[in-house]
Amino acid sequence: MPIIHVYGWKGLSDEAKRKIIAGITKVFTDMGIPKEAVEVIIHEIPKESWGVGGELASEKLRDFRPP
Amino acid sequence: MPIIHVYGWKGLSDEAKRKIIAGITKVFTDMGIPKEAVEVIIHEIPKESWGVGGELASEKLRDFRPP
Amino acid sequence: MPIIHVYGWKGLSDEAKRKIIAGITKVFTDMGIPKEAVEVIIHEIPKESWGVGGELASEKLRDFRPP
Amino acid sequence: MPIIHVYGWKGLSDEAKRKIIAGITKVFTDMGIPKEAVEVIIHEIPKESWGVGGELASEKLRDFRPP
Amino acid sequence: MPIIHVYGWKGLSDEAKRKIIAGITKVFTDMGIPKEAVEVIIHEIPKESWGVGGELASEKLRDFRPP
Amino acid sequence: MPIIHVYGWKGLSDEAKRKIIAGITKVFTDMGIPKEAVEVIIHEIPKESWGVGGELASEKLRDFRPP
Repeated sequence: MPIIHVYGWKGLSDEAKRKIIAGITKVFTDMGIPKEAVEVIIHEIPKESWGVGGELASEKLRDFRPP
Repeated sequence: MPIIHVYGWKGLSDEAKRKIIAGITKVFTDMGIPKEAVEVIIHEIPKESWGVGGELASEKLRDFRPP
Repeated sequence: MPIIHVYGWKGLSDEAKRKIIAGITKVFTDMGIPKEAVEVIIHEIPKESWGVGGELASEKLRDFRPP
Repeated sequence: MPIIHVYGWKGLSDEAKRKIIAGITKVFTDMGIPKEAVEVIIHEIPKESWGVGGELASEKLRDFRPP
Repeated sequence: MPIIHVYGWKGLSDEAKRKIIAGITKVFTDMGIPKEAVEVIIHEIPKESWGVGGELASEKLRDFRPP
Repeated sequence: MPIIHVYGWKGLSDEAKRKIIAGITKVFTDMGIPKEAVEVIIHEIPKESWGVGGELASEKLRDFRPP
């Protein structure tokens, strides 16, 4: 407790994952939660499986690259 | 808002994904939600990771193919 | 199969839920999936538990009402 | 994109929710993601619906209070 | 690790929750996972928010009661 | 109903998946739920996408192997 599921686009570097996990964990430790209690799961979703405004993100947001 | 997570079996064509995303988005725009507000995430699950009635779908429903 | 989790704001009428469930189910039956195989779960989230752009939706989008 | 689901124990104050939402959003804006693209959903779970080590958190961790 | 999200209908007794949490945890400890590593979250969904075969479970499966 | 989402580390054998699916299903059939109603979805997450205590599980728990 807490458990955090992050859904973003496929292609995150390990460095980006490290920042996401460390950053989100710190939000909770700053509130007094022990860091061992925080679990963060990153789900990388292919852009062709993500719809925004009724269209595939792979077609609508062709040029966006995950960090 | 809203956010929709769809869990189905692996192997969907891009055409099938387009239909799922457009169709689900339309359900909400028909109710007056702006289409840009609708996000649909499709999670493709291997049949050997999906259990129905206590058995792997890959063994129990061997002949089913996703659209 | 498939399983669909819908996350929206609290306060949907039963009529709105009926439309969401019937509409999403039809997306899949139109693709040849038997209707009994489709499960839709609606999660109603209080606006003060939903963040958009770093703020609570209850403060940022005060006037929006769910259908 | 991204979408973040947070699961914690019931009883968070609005102030705690504000910190969670602002803090998690900042993790992503620090990586160059526009803040409007970040959606955070907080799910408050009753302690008697959360199991740790095979026991209800309401019994095992009786004295813990959410921030 | 592992984290298990259970979605069922609202109205489970604490005794039923205890059985679900103890039973699922045992599945993993039987495989050699330490019990402290297993977290189980039960989400109780109102029957009028759950669709089966395109209809609300509250209308279609009126007589079913959760254990 | 019920639907169970299991999140664990990537690399489960088919035999381990069979045990997870059969075991979790049995928890519910023991409570009187018909087995056909139980769906279990296993999500295998790469260890470098899973954070524990603010660090990647791939770095912190390097030697752990899934069953």
